[in-house]
Amino acid sequence: MVVMEEFKHFVIVKFKEGVVVEELTKGMEKLVSEIDLVKSFEWGQDIESLDVLRQGFTHAFLMTFNKKEDFAAFQSHPSHVEFSEKFSTAIEKIVLLDFPSNLVKPVKEAA
Amino acid sequence: MVVMEEFKHFVIVKFKEGVVVEELTKGMEKLVSEIDLVKSFEWGQDIESLDVLRQGFTHAFLMTFNKKEDFAAFQSHPSHVEFSEKFSTAIEKIVLLDFPSNLVKPVKEAA
Repeated sequence: MVVMEEFKHFVIVKFKEGVVVEELTKGMEKLVSEIDLVKSFEWGQDIESLDVLRQGFTHAFLMTFNKKEDFAAFQSHPSHVEFSEKFSTAIEKIVLLDFPSNLVKPVKEAA
Repeated sequence: MVVMEEFKHFVIVKFKEGVVVEELTKGMEKLVSEIDLVKSFEWGQDIESLDVLRQGFTHAFLMTFNKKEDFAAFQSHPSHVEFSEKFSTAIEKIVLLDFPSNLVKPVKEAA
């Protein structure tokens, strides 16, 4: 099996108090749906991890691109730039990691 | 299209100085390959993000399970417990997030 190397954009955040998180997640869903460069997008809110391990972070966002160049193009896309400005005002803390993915176990289609 | 809700275990770490990271990533690859509960596993080392956004974290590990119960069973699996003890001694800092995933754009098979 040949597995393409994908490029991942991984973000974890803690939102400021009072932020309406759903507005932001809806906005992000709209953004990635409109930009074909984004191959896949998943996000979630932590419901399980211990607080000491979560360290205040509550939400994870994971975008997958076919290649690094697609991620770079997404980063500079006007819609992304506009969204990022809004998003950043809602953030108390954030960590971003961008990396080529080593796929050890591939995602299989549901049977 | 029906998309199953998956359960995600996301870990980001900064390793201690002097740690042979490859030994640990190989060990983790072996671990997840041997445990069928893990549906998919990807990891990567940040090569792109700005230091201020990366905040010292260097590696991301992303595991996918079919359901929360599978993750719980993986957590308590003897091989995972043994590996975690070794892994934790190599860590300078770590954040874990565990959550049911909202899949907005599904991962497609490569054409």
